[in-house]
Amino acid sequence: MSDADPKPSTSTNVKWHHGELDEATRERLLGGPGCVVWFTGLSGSGKSTVARRVERRLLEDGVRAYVLDGDNLRHGLNGDLGFTAEDRTENIRRVGEVARLMADAGLVVLSAFVSPYAADRDRVRGLVPGGRFIEVFVDTPLAVCEARDPKGLYKKARAGVISDFTGISAPYEAPPAPEVHLQTDGKSIDVCAAEVMQGIRDRGYANRA
Amino acid sequence: MSDADPKPSTSTNVKWHHGELDEATRERLLGGPGCVVWFTGLSGSGKSTVARRVERRLLEDGVRAYVLDGDNLRHGLNGDLGFTAEDRTENIRRVGEVARLMADAGLVVLSAFVSPYAADRDRVRGLVPGGRFIEVFVDTPLAVCEARDPKGLYKKARAGVISDFTGISAPYEAPPAPEVHLQTDGKSIDVCAAEVMQGIRDRGYANRA
Repeated sequence: MSDADPKPSTSTNVKWHHGELDEATRERLLGGPGCVVWFTGLSGSGKSTVARRVERRLLEDGVRAYVLDGDNLRHGLNGDLGFTAEDRTENIRRVGEVARLMADAGLVVLSAFVSPYAADRDRVRGLVPGGRFIEVFVDTPLAVCEARDPKGLYKKARAGVISDFTGISAPYEAPPAPEVHLQTDGKSIDVCAAEVMQGIRDRGYANRA
Repeated sequence: MSDADPKPSTSTNVKWHHGELDEATRERLLGGPGCVVWFTGLSGSGKSTVARRVERRLLEDGVRAYVLDGDNLRHGLNGDLGFTAEDRTENIRRVGEVARLMADAGLVVLSAFVSPYAADRDRVRGLVPGGRFIEVFVDTPLAVCEARDPKGLYKKARAGVISDFTGISAPYEAPPAPEVHLQTDGKSIDVCAAEVMQGIRDRGYANRA
């Protein structure tokens, strides 16, 4: 049927068919609406750690949530991609498309990727219906990230063993106007998670229990 | 963090981290476990139509379900892919990875793609934990599909305007042992949907209302 369309479109503005139920009914039955909470920041800034604490809080509050990060994406869907600028862009494009589908299925999607390029993040924002994209800038000083260096990657990047490493040998473009500007330095994970929860609640996506 | 791993793995056997909750608790809070219901069959066989009827039934029963098909995949995530054998394989690989993520998030995923190659379908089966992959062979005679020809694609394929068209100029490998063998000819959409619902129920994935 549709997968036999001989001219696949690359448009992102296509109105999807949503089957037999009207949109409001479908959304209600899915427990939605969902949204995309997009964590961006340097390696070691705490994106995944905070995202997983937020996931726990949401689930315990009865809100269905799911973390997308390198652990479940880089090994699977994006296992064919490396770390060149082009591959990073394709990585984020695919993550964005998956996040949009999962949000459309009523989930609060917590996406935790360095996503260093503003244009890539803005493209994802454009995929998600208005207001359902919450950008969280995990703003941790480079020196702090480098001191943590949980996987020894900064050390390797400084030594030139790893090339194209964000913050060292590849750029990080900080978001100019994120929905949540999370300055993590000196704060506990719980305090960080609470700030993100507030950002989600303020937009009406965490009040379904 | 993990997305800065300099050597992305292509293994599909990686044990994902699931954050702070143990697996059973997470699954319960997500309303899961989810599963992947994989519809395969010729163009025009009725895959999407039946999948959308099943989606409606599940949602009305309080089971969160989501259809993945050409409408929401070919235009987005897989908008860069065509219809060569290689692109079809990559298309199904990505759909499989997305389906696995969504099932992991507690959803009953209804995937409706021609997916003509047995090896591609079996690869997806291998991605999903045991028993959570339900293959539905939508078995409609080629002559019936061609007589329906909802998008005029068979006509174009016969005229040679479209190449590599499944059933006409490209192979379809029927599943030898699908979980549900749906012979649609002469049956209503409701009867077809009921047979699929039974296959889902028999495996314990539609009893959560």
